[in-house]
Amino acid sequence: MSDLASALTACAETVEKCLDRLLPHTETPEARVIDAMRYATLGGGKRIRPFLLVESAKLFGVAESCAYRAASALEMVHCYSLVHDDLPAMDDDDMRRGRPTVHKEYDEATAILAGDALLTKSFEVLAHPDTHENAGVRANLCLALATASGDHGMVGGQMLDLVAEQSELDIPEITRLQRMKTGALIAVACDMGAIMGRATGAARQALHHYAHDIGLAFQIADDLLDVEGDADEVGKRTGKDEAAGKATFVSLLGVERAREQAHLLAGQAAAHLEMFEEKGEHLKELADFIVTRRK
Amino acid sequence: MSDLASALTACAETVEKCLDRLLPHTETPEARVIDAMRYATLGGGKRIRPFLLVESAKLFGVAESCAYRAASALEMVHCYSLVHDDLPAMDDDDMRRGRPTVHKEYDEATAILAGDALLTKSFEVLAHPDTHENAGVRANLCLALATASGDHGMVGGQMLDLVAEQSELDIPEITRLQRMKTGALIAVACDMGAIMGRATGAARQALHHYAHDIGLAFQIADDLLDVEGDADEVGKRTGKDEAAGKATFVSLLGVERAREQAHLLAGQAAAHLEMFEEKGEHLKELADFIVTRRK
Repeated sequence: MSDLASALTACAETVEKCLDRLLPHTETPEARVIDAMRYATLGGGKRIRPFLLVESAKLFGVAESCAYRAASALEMVHCYSLVHDDLPAMDDDDMRRGRPTVHKEYDEATAILAGDALLTKSFEVLAHPDTHENAGVRANLCLALATASGDHGMVGGQMLDLVAEQSELDIPEITRLQRMKTGALIAVACDMGAIMGRATGAARQALHHYAHDIGLAFQIADDLLDVEGDADEVGKRTGKDEAAGKATFVSLLGVERAREQAHLLAGQAAAHLEMFEEKGEHLKELADFIVTRRK
Repeated sequence: MSDLASALTACAETVEKCLDRLLPHTETPEARVIDAMRYATLGGGKRIRPFLLVESAKLFGVAESCAYRAASALEMVHCYSLVHDDLPAMDDDDMRRGRPTVHKEYDEATAILAGDALLTKSFEVLAHPDTHENAGVRANLCLALATASGDHGMVGGQMLDLVAEQSELDIPEITRLQRMKTGALIAVACDMGAIMGRATGAARQALHHYAHDIGLAFQIADDLLDVEGDADEVGKRTGKDEAAGKATFVSLLGVERAREQAHLLAGQAAAHLEMFEEKGEHLKELADFIVTRRK
């Protein structure tokens, strides 16, 4: 296993343990929603966003236990967005990560509530003193995550995605959509690491540019997987975008140019990290991994 | 108009203006979700929770502009919970405050996203430096609101409410359900005022007890309105609980005893505020208003 692969696996295992601790099963009558939150977050996922946060925090010497709490909060937001995205009124998906989606395993009402509770819990975790000793850092983590995931970030991007089904988007419009829908949460992963490390100036900027580039690269790679991937391997339905007649980077650029663009962005992302020398190695390798992954 | 009535009206008007500023209409393609957020929050509501927060903050000399930001954030959480509660998979309601519910006026997907974005925005507002100069206060506001509205608070209570449709609850179980579903957000309104005013000791405790009592009184009054209220006056469908076979305070205690209990709690709530003397007058009157209101 490569150095990056083992680092990703180790991170995923630690995130899993941390989420398990932050979302303990209870014996109370409302346990159903807590179990659904656990189902939505535990047992899988590449944990790319947590890895970005933890590796970014590491650049600035942040304590691991703190970084993993913030990373778990971020992953809760990612997972809640998948739960709501999969609902019948949204993408209407039955499978996710090779398992029934939350509304299939439980029911729609529980899925709505579990998503709401995960989003809420993420801010509870970030605002808690265990996440960082400095209250200003905690408030800034909440502010950064809320800004990235709300109406001007992820949720706004999801709205654009729905609107896009009734209109023909061009490349600048698709770029804006993806930057909001997927890019904002990827970028804030790195920003949150920098916030925890109280990074300023050039280091923070470099990391921000890196995050910006891999966010877009990640989405193009996702579009390519939707076209070329095998549903069993990817763990969710593929060919969705084409079936829905949705404009994507791939439908607009073609497979070859989209792939080139993804690799170009990944290379550009890695170049931003030169100043961190060896400490930035995992993040640089991740940029390459993101555009070559098979799921 | 009584002193309380004019204070409530003035507060509601200021909250309306503040929400309008915090949720500006945009001309971007994702405007649909922002318009739905505005539709869900503007143009009505008694604004009881904001009033509680603002009046509590006033006890400790908090600047009004700050208190109203926090109050608007709290109201966003209340409004998001109504939007999601009204969804077909949840309570399936078509009318709210005398208007079509968000999923009726827009569509289900937009309603889900608007709710998500309102919840997210509330933390964005609380964590922003404009809400309080002290970062510790901002982090504590986020922590308090998240704890009150998540799986161990409001959302947990909504889960209990759904589970309750398939089981017979007794008074202690109903009390726990309502304390989570409705009481937690009412109680945190007062707690947030105290947090902003950095209140400690007896004053904070007194306010907390007050909030606890009116939270329950509020719910019993709501149950009474569901039985006795007129849909046109109340602004939403009535007789819902009985039709759903739901156990409520009223179904378990009967109308008369439920009404007595509500008045008892209101009196008890007011008594907790003696130490604040005249400054607590509005909050004391509110306790009475809550159990005598007609909508």
